[in-house]
Amino acid sequence: MIKVLVKGYGTIGKRGAWALRRQSDLTLYGVVKRRPDYSAILAVKSGIDVYVPGEEELRAFEESGVRVAGLLDDALGRVDAVVDATPGGVGRKYKGLYVKHGVKAVFQGGEAPDVAQVSFNPLCNYSEALGKDFIRVVSCNTTALLRLICSLNRYFTVDRVRAVIVRRGADPKEVRRGPINAIVLNPPKLPSHHGVDVKTVLPWLDIQTAAFAVPTTLMHTHFIQVFLKEGVTREDVVRVLEGSPRIVLVGAEALGVSSTAELAEVIRDMGRARGDMYELAVWEESVTVIDGREVMLTQSVHQESIVVPENVDALRAALSIEKDGERSINITDTALGLVGGWLLWSS
Amino acid sequence: MIKVLVKGYGTIGKRGAWALRRQSDLTLYGVVKRRPDYSAILAVKSGIDVYVPGEEELRAFEESGVRVAGLLDDALGRVDAVVDATPGGVGRKYKGLYVKHGVKAVFQGGEAPDVAQVSFNPLCNYSEALGKDFIRVVSCNTTALLRLICSLNRYFTVDRVRAVIVRRGADPKEVRRGPINAIVLNPPKLPSHHGVDVKTVLPWLDIQTAAFAVPTTLMHTHFIQVFLKEGVTREDVVRVLEGSPRIVLVGAEALGVSSTAELAEVIRDMGRARGDMYELAVWEESVTVIDGREVMLTQSVHQESIVVPENVDALRAALSIEKDGERSINITDTALGLVGGWLLWSS
Repeated sequence: MIKVLVKGYGTIGKRGAWALRRQSDLTLYGVVKRRPDYSAILAVKSGIDVYVPGEEELRAFEESGVRVAGLLDDALGRVDAVVDATPGGVGRKYKGLYVKHGVKAVFQGGEAPDVAQVSFNPLCNYSEALGKDFIRVVSCNTTALLRLICSLNRYFTVDRVRAVIVRRGADPKEVRRGPINAIVLNPPKLPSHHGVDVKTVLPWLDIQTAAFAVPTTLMHTHFIQVFLKEGVTREDVVRVLEGSPRIVLVGAEALGVSSTAELAEVIRDMGRARGDMYELAVWEESVTVIDGREVMLTQSVHQESIVVPENVDALRAALSIEKDGERSINITDTALGLVGGWLLWSS
Repeated sequence: MIKVLVKGYGTIGKRGAWALRRQSDLTLYGVVKRRPDYSAILAVKSGIDVYVPGEEELRAFEESGVRVAGLLDDALGRVDAVVDATPGGVGRKYKGLYVKHGVKAVFQGGEAPDVAQVSFNPLCNYSEALGKDFIRVVSCNTTALLRLICSLNRYFTVDRVRAVIVRRGADPKEVRRGPINAIVLNPPKLPSHHGVDVKTVLPWLDIQTAAFAVPTTLMHTHFIQVFLKEGVTREDVVRVLEGSPRIVLVGAEALGVSSTAELAEVIRDMGRARGDMYELAVWEESVTVIDGREVMLTQSVHQESIVVPENVDALRAALSIEKDGERSINITDTALGLVGGWLLWSS
């Protein structure tokens, strides 16, 4: 059985660990944490082995009485791969250690693209990542953009993309981040980094993005304009989205919801762990086609969890467990309980 | 001297009254209020005559000891025009009274377009409003869109417009409105009413708008894409905006600001009454031209005050005091102290 270590046990790390425990071809070997805080206690309580980076942290764990399984260095000698979910920029510092131990690593979008051999989304470039030692799963907003663009580009020919990203200012737990009453140009000058980041996966794409950070914590929301080379109808687009994995159509009228807060409540009521939504939510009523070639729509993105399925696929690609991207996606999504088509009900 | 009554003394009414007192060709006759609350007390203290709609309100004022100048009906017999700044939909109910008294009326964007003979922006259709009895000044977001579109269309040929409106959820004083933690699709289906409303002034325009309400109170922010029929450079666009009235370029880097909160602070520090910003703020760094014909930019809009200058011009047009739109704009803006070109400093 393939053993995977999750390094960093924050927003992505804890969800990645949860997801790995639900895969039948991958095993969670343990997680690496620096501090014996509440999430270390919860990890131990749920039967996860917690490792620490060094002797200093080992003492801190021992003093606090939180069970510690050993040192990072020992763990790296016993695993096949690492999901590096440390804060942006920290992953790079540990890359040498992964090389030394000959373990493959999946980095997150907070790292610069050159940390890895390939920036990755399984709907776009799974085969490029096959057997690679270092793969970078792009950030939440970029992942959402790529899911949409590559799903459309599978059936149509995407010519260019313009997107406005209305970003949540902070995650629910981030009490020090703002804004609390402002719309922040992120940044004033175009493009925002999201368009640039999409091009790390799709270098041929003509894309421009603008981003605004706003005072909310629940989800991002994108307004996207996709120009196609061929003429399509609204029904064509809805049908493609209906059949695309990791995308779910939300009927605002059918469900009686028209905001990120109400959508998040639907997900909580569905009993999802942590209120997570792995699917990209496309608002059905927003899908608009002008003159056949200009597709516009609004989509919402659960920033804390959307990249989790992509991390699992990245492991399968790196370790060559599965050669076919579609099959990997299907295995991951079945294990994690993603829904396709319509959320609960079609209009 | 032309006498004007301001009916409704809320967000727009109090600013409209303030603006009228600064014009040399128009006189504020008085304002009409229902309740003897703090703003009635402030109005009386600043020397404004306060009228009431009926006997019941007269008694309430007399009981509270706030000086009242008389009844709406009496005032209407002595004025030339009314700025109707009552809540959306209320203006229509009073239209019959204005007809009866033979007074001209300027309505706000909260009224349905058919309340008036013309929906109005002086940069777009001043001459259409000349001598009309009933003019509707479109809402804050629509006014902002029209200022930009008509300024560009004066020098270039606007082919089509796509705009995403990130709306403030509530005004600073509106304690009952939300959202407090959500991005609200406003509405899910395209177009939002803003695009439709722009077409009440520019029926020929191909425009689509999407709107999102977010938890902030200070300003709206728009991301706009204007397709032109001819090729232009970024410098061409900046030069046109520099020379357009009611538009001010904000250099984010030069001023060290990149959000609505920081921009609002600049305006407060400039000593503007109520922190009002009558100008449409175009963020200089955001101005982007792709392939000569696709202009993109970000602009911010002070929702409480932006329509005030337009209300003054609407009066001049209705009363035929000034036949030339540009001259009216110039008179209004000089009296109110609007700045053109760059805000404080160019980058």
